[in-house]
Amino acid sequence: MFDLTLIGIGTGNPDHVTFQGANAIRDADLILIPRKGENKADLAGLREEIIAAVTDTPPQIAYFDIPKRRAEDGYLRGVDEWHDAIALRWQEAIAAHPNARHVALLIWGDPSLYDSSLRIASRLDPQPQTRVIPGITALQALTAAHAIPINDLGAPYVVTTGRRIRDEGWPANASKVAVMLDGECSFQSLDMEGYDIWWGAYVGMKQQILIKGRLTEVSEEILANRARCRAAHGWIMDIYLLKKREI
Amino acid sequence: MFDLTLIGIGTGNPDHVTFQGANAIRDADLILIPRKGENKADLAGLREEIIAAVTDTPPQIAYFDIPKRRAEDGYLRGVDEWHDAIALRWQEAIAAHPNARHVALLIWGDPSLYDSSLRIASRLDPQPQTRVIPGITALQALTAAHAIPINDLGAPYVVTTGRRIRDEGWPANASKVAVMLDGECSFQSLDMEGYDIWWGAYVGMKQQILIKGRLTEVSEEILANRARCRAAHGWIMDIYLLKKREI
Ligand SMILES: C[S@@+](CC[C@H](N)C(=O)[O-])C[C@H]1O[C@@H](n2cnc3c(N)ncnc32)[C@H](O)[C@@H]1O
Ligand SMILES: C[S@@+](CC[C@H](N)C(=O)[O-])C[C@H]1O[C@@H](n2cnc3c(N)ncnc32)[C@H](O)[C@@H]1O
Repeated sequence: MFDLTLIGIGTGNPDHVTFQGANAIRDADLILIPRKGENKADLAGLREEIIAAVTDTPPQIAYFDIPKRRAEDGYLRGVDEWHDAIALRWQEAIAAHPNARHVALLIWGDPSLYDSSLRIASRLDPQPQTRVIPGITALQALTAAHAIPINDLGAPYVVTTGRRIRDEGWPANASKVAVMLDGECSFQSLDMEGYDIWWGAYVGMKQQILIKGRLTEVSEEILANRARCRAAHGWIMDIYLLKKREI
Repeated sequence: MFDLTLIGIGTGNPDHVTFQGANAIRDADLILIPRKGENKADLAGLREEIIAAVTDTPPQIAYFDIPKRRAEDGYLRGVDEWHDAIALRWQEAIAAHPNARHVALLIWGDPSLYDSSLRIASRLDPQPQTRVIPGITALQALTAAHAIPINDLGAPYVVTTGRRIRDEGWPANASKVAVMLDGECSFQSLDMEGYDIWWGAYVGMKQQILIKGRLTEVSEEILANRARCRAAHGWIMDIYLLKKREI
């Protein structure tokens, strides 16, 4: 029987790795690495680079393919089946290494934030003991890059997705909202007069771009940069913080 | 002229430090360390321990006292003056080391999250170039320790303070809310039937305690543990995630 460690590795900068994460990599005897991610960021060899940087005696690596997601049955249904399918791939990859006692995955950002690994792990049978090592999130990489706090003094903030902003609008009573998983610059669905934005793409990585300002004044620039970079690199990941302007 | 680096060091576990944080410590030639924090966690020698762990040639260290906060003029006013006073202490500590070019502070958790360092830094005159290195937050330490995601699938979450929960109740439309800066177990002000809780104190540290369950069933246990540990250690820091139960 094996145990499972989900190791947060940060958002593309290998120096985001914590000492705890590095120790967990050294303790692992098998690391599962996805061969094809949802986007090409996962293809960059970052995980291999991180492993090589922290140990001279690398653990075994088992590559697994991420199955295609079927979207036609509705969002949640599709995700559920997709997680079942990924769990099967993990199970096969682990079964091919029957001597592995300490299995690990290197998780983009932090395993707690808009990530499926914990839900996939809970589908494994038998259920391994599962441990989580926190990692720097894209949200922290964004606020660090802009050198801003995420909250106003003593005030709350909301973290949400592009889809929610499009479908539900600005969250009730919120003054600051961070948006992730947004392929469509969903801030355009808001009344842009009313907000300031701190936007970043490839945050923490060499390609990092940052734009900030009144949403009405910088939205075109963000759209243009996003389109250009996406075309140039073949993929993009972006994230932003919005603040309601006081009137 | 000097530049300033705010280095997130995580929440009490020296292994929360990232490679980027360790590099920034090595690059500093002066590190400011508070002599008396708001609570005794800051007294634990953690910062010295971290510095010693990452470099054999430690930078100079300048200790500064944190002035007392005057609360009588209302919360925001009091905080504002307090930040002015701390900025003066930083300024004095730095002025005593006129050759320092790279000044750093080791910030509990992440400098972006319920932390004043960026606001204090903005009061320095002349204004130094300020850089932020993200660190593991108490929230991530909590979700990692419980091995749970912070968000439901594709859903938003709110981060707020104990004071806001007491004054304003449950945030409108929220399904998951993380609460920090709560000295009073403010979950008691909610209708406790309606929530599940994942609570942690000293998260990431040797003294870590975790409690989870239906709020009605575990609230007494949390109150008792909190009081006992606070008395035993002389200080406590706790944080929790609440989820609205489906009816
Ligand atoms: C599936 S979520 C994973 C989040 C990750 N677990 C974390 O802690 O940041 C992917 C989303 O994170 C954000 N993201 C991740 N890495 C990023 C980066 N380097 N720059 C900008 N956004 C990033 C984007 O909003 C992207 O859509
Ligand atoms: C002034 S805020 C600083 C937060 C910090 N910047 C971070 O990123 O976590 C202090 C609050 O953080 C939480 N906290 C910090 N360290 C903690 C720990 N080790 N265990 C539990 N809660 C902690 C508590 O809610 C505490 O009231």
